[in-house]
Amino acid sequence: MKQIKLGLSAWRMGYHIAAWRHPSVQPDGSMDLSHFKAVAQAAERYRFDLIFMPDELAIRGEDNPEGARSRGSHVAELEPITLLSALAALTQHVGLVSTGSTTYAEPYNTARQFLSLDHLSNGRAGWNVVTSWGKEDALNFGHLAAPDYNLRYERASEFVDVVRGLWNSWDADAFLRDKESGLFFDPQKMHVLDHKGDHFNVRGPLHMARSPQGEPVIFFAGDSEAGRDVAARAADVVFTAKQTLEDAQAFYASVKGRLAANGRTEDELLIMPGLMPIVGRTREEAEAKHEALQNLIDPLIGLASLYDRLGDLSDYDLDGPVPEPKDPAFRSRAEVIYKLAQKEGYTIRQLYMALASGRGHRVVIGTAEDVADAMQEWQEGRAADGFNIIPTHLPEALDDFGTLVIPELQRRGLVRTEYDGTSLRDNLGLPKRGL
Amino acid sequence: MKQIKLGLSAWRMGYHIAAWRHPSVQPDGSMDLSHFKAVAQAAERYRFDLIFMPDELAIRGEDNPEGARSRGSHVAELEPITLLSALAALTQHVGLVSTGSTTYAEPYNTARQFLSLDHLSNGRAGWNVVTSWGKEDALNFGHLAAPDYNLRYERASEFVDVVRGLWNSWDADAFLRDKESGLFFDPQKMHVLDHKGDHFNVRGPLHMARSPQGEPVIFFAGDSEAGRDVAARAADVVFTAKQTLEDAQAFYASVKGRLAANGRTEDELLIMPGLMPIVGRTREEAEAKHEALQNLIDPLIGLASLYDRLGDLSDYDLDGPVPEPKDPAFRSRAEVIYKLAQKEGYTIRQLYMALASGRGHRVVIGTAEDVADAMQEWQEGRAADGFNIIPTHLPEALDDFGTLVIPELQRRGLVRTEYDGTSLRDNLGLPKRGL
Repeated sequence: MKQIKLGLSAWRMGYHIAAWRHPSVQPDGSMDLSHFKAVAQAAERYRFDLIFMPDELAIRGEDNPEGARSRGSHVAELEPITLLSALAALTQHVGLVSTGSTTYAEPYNTARQFLSLDHLSNGRAGWNVVTSWGKEDALNFGHLAAPDYNLRYERASEFVDVVRGLWNSWDADAFLRDKESGLFFDPQKMHVLDHKGDHFNVRGPLHMARSPQGEPVIFFAGDSEAGRDVAARAADVVFTAKQTLEDAQAFYASVKGRLAANGRTEDELLIMPGLMPIVGRTREEAEAKHEALQNLIDPLIGLASLYDRLGDLSDYDLDGPVPEPKDPAFRSRAEVIYKLAQKEGYTIRQLYMALASGRGHRVVIGTAEDVADAMQEWQEGRAADGFNIIPTHLPEALDDFGTLVIPELQRRGLVRTEYDGTSLRDNLGLPKRGL
Repeated sequence: MKQIKLGLSAWRMGYHIAAWRHPSVQPDGSMDLSHFKAVAQAAERYRFDLIFMPDELAIRGEDNPEGARSRGSHVAELEPITLLSALAALTQHVGLVSTGSTTYAEPYNTARQFLSLDHLSNGRAGWNVVTSWGKEDALNFGHLAAPDYNLRYERASEFVDVVRGLWNSWDADAFLRDKESGLFFDPQKMHVLDHKGDHFNVRGPLHMARSPQGEPVIFFAGDSEAGRDVAARAADVVFTAKQTLEDAQAFYASVKGRLAANGRTEDELLIMPGLMPIVGRTREEAEAKHEALQNLIDPLIGLASLYDRLGDLSDYDLDGPVPEPKDPAFRSRAEVIYKLAQKEGYTIRQLYMALASGRGHRVVIGTAEDVADAMQEWQEGRAADGFNIIPTHLPEALDDFGTLVIPELQRRGLVRTEYDGTSLRDNLGLPKRGL
């Protein structure tokens, strides 16, 4: 039986917007290695394939309703590449996936840091490619606004090619390190990239040996046509946010359908939608856990949580209808939640309450059986190869999933009971990759 | 008695050009975390204040004599920020200092990664500011050559100001994290940098709490007038390469003399020349250790070792005189070694043999007493506040220093026997710093 792949969103103190106020949560956890050490080691105990760090390059939400900013925990956090490098030394098996922007970085630096993380962890690194759309990000890098959508994706596509080219600077057997003859490497097995493109000129070679797993694993989350095309060409794993089986199946078919044209098989790219599980020993207990978190949401933060998908709604009546999204920059992420509001007839307040837990991702509230059923249905229905599990708050909600749902999935033979390889590609069942 | 500060160059497999061929050395050590873990933990056992990682952004030496390149171990190494982040999780006391370029990076990214390393290590991070003069580096970042000297230093100076500004985004007591009221921080204690300069526009604030040590420690190694001015204004520690007491005293006086004009006292900036110790239980044993390493130098590598200071000498007679350096880009580092060749009447071959061990840095070959004397003389003579100890090969030459010289220095009361603080500033006796 094909197994379900499991990622863990290990961001901050959890993904729920009020996570830091939960009684079980260490409120300065997002600045503290010991918090992440506990999370990463728990992920390994539960046999996750990988932990995943989203990232932002600024304090977002400057246009949020007044007073919201000082109530959000997103203003102070560790940087993900350095954090995952520290965790590489504290874990043995779990994959370490960091987000990295293609808009405000140099490909040589990005190639080097991710490949270094890969070597530090003996082949467990992954790079989640993002293009950084936010205005606040742009202002920290000398720009008044992010480049437009198409330009960002063109640059991202070339950036990924350059990074992969640099990762292929050396054959796996290039280094002789022969003390006797004095030859350190075989010059025939070194490859100078000499990339000259629209956005980058990068000569190479990278001054680092090839990855133990061929190349670090590339993750991508673009939902647009351009994003799907880049993913089908270059990504190993696609993250996505889908609420319904039908939407997830359509996305799955669309992305997998683009692989053949790129000379790739369906097994070479995994699709892993986000899933926020809220798990209890009974459904009532699960609902009560959810309710307790929802009650911690500050109304100012509720509005702010809608801002990056629907824009500033502070001039609208909280108990009135949700206005139609206009800014095309928000389009792909707004579409899902706007549809939801229409379908359910939500007011703005009802919408932010409904979204606050999952923030665009599918939320499943119930027993271990309920959550395992929800996962199995999507996997069997060709909607998912695995899931990016997004705990509401850390580490408690991860422990709920790990101690209740994981044993149920293991009982069904849907996830592993022991690690059986050494690299992230081994964990994910992906072949070694190289150009 | 004022104590001598101790840094450890933990680069690659040691600083000697033939280090990787030494029988004791793991020849793939520069790609292996376990090598650096052993070095860092030894540094802590010997009570070093800090370990230091130089860095390059390319495989240098493309114009070296044919065949030299494939004989050098500098072609494959881990990236220093990620490496030191892993070592942060494996050490408790020793400072973690990485080189970071101001020419091919964005200040927001640099500020963030170094401050994150600082938090991961509970206040033990330092940033060695460099401007990346190499042509090979430039070619990896879309430039045909490095910007000229003055432009690099102007940019570096502004870059450091931006980074320090971002590090001061939050007061130490800015974060309330009050679960009851929902207030995460006090908006009065957040500072928006809003830097607009000749080279950078960076708004900020940085989305990370202030350093436990106020700011990470800033290291600088510029020897020129411009470099000394930037150091006196912004650096906490200056690294330098000086061969003689007189040269070191002149440099010490010159840099310390610039502090008052910057409103700083002499105690606020430490000067730490490089020192390569080759230590034996007898002088004969030390000489024999040196000889054994020198005999491992490939002549092709010998010429290549002169390249970055004197240019390509492959058209000259190896047994003829050393030609005068012409390129101003090489001037400051070339001056010292050209003078040495003149004074000693060295041929090219004799020069590369003489330089190969220290590569511009002072070499002391002898017993523990000899090395301790050499250190004490410079400290008492106002030529050094401490030393960046540069082992020929790792970890063996570090262990020689640690087991022979450290006890002698401790006996003289010149270095600590136990760590007495928690941060790198504590180790170095530097006050907390902030804007």
